[in-house]
Amino acid sequence: MSGDREIQTISFTRGVPPPEAFPTGQIQECAIAILEREGSVVLQYHPAAGLLPLREWLAQRYGVAPEAVLVSNGSLQIEEFLTRLLTSPGDVVLVESPSYDRAITIFRRAGARVVGVPLEPDGFDVGTLESLTKKLKPKFFYIIPDFQNPTGVTTSLAKRERLVDLAERYDFWVLEDNPYRDLRYVGGQLPTIFSLHSKKVLHLSSFSKVLSPGIRVGYLIGPESLVQQSAKIAEDTYVSPNMIGQGIVHEYCRRGWLGPNIDRLRDMYRPRLEGLASALEEHLAEARWTRPEGGFFIGVHLPPEVDTSLLRIRTRDMGVVLSDGRGFFPEGDGDLFLRFPFCALSVEEIREGIARIGSLVKTMAIHPSGRG
Amino acid sequence: MSGDREIQTISFTRGVPPPEAFPTGQIQECAIAILEREGSVVLQYHPAAGLLPLREWLAQRYGVAPEAVLVSNGSLQIEEFLTRLLTSPGDVVLVESPSYDRAITIFRRAGARVVGVPLEPDGFDVGTLESLTKKLKPKFFYIIPDFQNPTGVTTSLAKRERLVDLAERYDFWVLEDNPYRDLRYVGGQLPTIFSLHSKKVLHLSSFSKVLSPGIRVGYLIGPESLVQQSAKIAEDTYVSPNMIGQGIVHEYCRRGWLGPNIDRLRDMYRPRLEGLASALEEHLAEARWTRPEGGFFIGVHLPPEVDTSLLRIRTRDMGVVLSDGRGFFPEGDGDLFLRFPFCALSVEEIREGIARIGSLVKTMAIHPSGRG
Repeated sequence: MSGDREIQTISFTRGVPPPEAFPTGQIQECAIAILEREGSVVLQYHPAAGLLPLREWLAQRYGVAPEAVLVSNGSLQIEEFLTRLLTSPGDVVLVESPSYDRAITIFRRAGARVVGVPLEPDGFDVGTLESLTKKLKPKFFYIIPDFQNPTGVTTSLAKRERLVDLAERYDFWVLEDNPYRDLRYVGGQLPTIFSLHSKKVLHLSSFSKVLSPGIRVGYLIGPESLVQQSAKIAEDTYVSPNMIGQGIVHEYCRRGWLGPNIDRLRDMYRPRLEGLASALEEHLAEARWTRPEGGFFIGVHLPPEVDTSLLRIRTRDMGVVLSDGRGFFPEGDGDLFLRFPFCALSVEEIREGIARIGSLVKTMAIHPSGRG
Repeated sequence: MSGDREIQTISFTRGVPPPEAFPTGQIQECAIAILEREGSVVLQYHPAAGLLPLREWLAQRYGVAPEAVLVSNGSLQIEEFLTRLLTSPGDVVLVESPSYDRAITIFRRAGARVVGVPLEPDGFDVGTLESLTKKLKPKFFYIIPDFQNPTGVTTSLAKRERLVDLAERYDFWVLEDNPYRDLRYVGGQLPTIFSLHSKKVLHLSSFSKVLSPGIRVGYLIGPESLVQQSAKIAEDTYVSPNMIGQGIVHEYCRRGWLGPNIDRLRDMYRPRLEGLASALEEHLAEARWTRPEGGFFIGVHLPPEVDTSLLRIRTRDMGVVLSDGRGFFPEGDGDLFLRFPFCALSVEEIREGIARIGSLVKTMAIHPSGRG
């Protein structure tokens, strides 16, 4: 603005993969192969449940029948179908607080009342979930159990087990959104909620984080009758899903390339997570956050003396772009919350960005009302 | 069922292109090129309005700004966005009667009351449209002006001009759905309704019929503010559209391959239309239909003495599959209506299928109540 020296802008806003994450050459090979072998299938209209060989591949992976699998243009679109199917305007749905902002928007758009269940370092607050389900009779609880967006928190096994008990007892659905699950950088996998009790759980995931977002392939694993009803809504919405994307994804999986690609991404992202964690420890020691074992994000709660709106403005002047934390909280709050996506930045950029924020926060904490 | 000799099944149900319509090799070349050149764009999340170079290409074609173009996963999905944007539950929308069954479903799903305007051989009945707009204050009139689905009817220039007058005077939107327009086999093009009065017209089209349906690329041309609002709904629904499909389509158009492909399809489909028309004249002389100048369908009204439900059952036994005409009529009717898609059948199949139907109709017309 005022003749500052040019500084590199570091953006901590969207949770997107970096360009080097995309196995472009392999995807090209798969595109060639699928058009060669299945051109008349992937170029044609297709039943809305998705490409059968891909549904079969996923079915095998999850130990279900192909009829229990719907493949769509990304998993958010499936959340829209499920909201349409499971709720009427005015119904209550529960989400972790904070939660994925786009999911909150989808639920609200359908007229649902979105109520938050506070998130602790090992997952949702069980007591609040139970009292809210008793009181509000929610249609479903939307949860991201592994490396949650926006906090990075993983739900403990004990809480997963408690959740399926509650879902059974109080008769609500669990929408388990699990796109980051395979991107675990340390520690061992916990069972999916779906695997603990498949009858009340709808499992959502996608290839956006492990292969490519632009390819738009997400999926639902759930009870067959519900999957079929979702497929009918899908057909009524877009006739067929995007078949070239699904064909490429299936070819990619069929060739056994997904596992090695995930290993490669883990190796790429692990040091970025470590870099962010150590930079936060060094430069934002007064902040509160949970160390994630995978995924795309660390969610940071700043000390109450920091004016985060002002911080966002000031950091922007310093070439650091932060997103507004309030969109992740269904019922206000979030003034002191910052989501830090780390996958699309180098360790150097991460360290530099956090250092700049840290220096600002120190000034602001010392002079809490200082706006000049 | 009962030991009949095996006969070839001829299906007059869905309006899909035949496999030989797909320029698979060219699409493969475009997939390779786009991943090579723009891999990090088409594999990434993308603004929901669609791939900018494709929006620019379309903008130039329609003589509008790129901001007036939204590209989505097929045009039905855009109809869903527009219904969400323009109507509230209980609002009236008008459609031609008969009209595209999936569009009727989309409008109804949003809670709209769908009212039909009878279709004549040169388009909608003007008097009824005017009296309905006065009486019901519809939010929009959904019209397929060129080679209509399901009838094949083309709206005359006089009626197009009258429509934009009425839209202006009574303040309703015109949703011009025009996916078949380029597939004109005889006669000269009429101006689009959009080109007559762009301020009250939302023009929808797609690459499904001129390139590939499985690629799922449809688009909206309309006033910029409305396109931007639609893009926001699109973002809230699926974050990004399917980018590989859009990349391939843009590469295909950029290389100048679309025009020659359309010429090839016209040459492929023209004899099929002629074959169907002459078979109808020969074998179903008592039926009433309008000779289309392009598109995918002829819509046939059978004489009132034919029980069409029974006909559908009987023809199925004879290896001819017909779709239920009633889905195309918003307010009942359609008992005597059959939609004949002709693009995905050879002239021989068309002639054979219509001959089988013709022989049955003759029997049924002679013995109208004969069910034995």
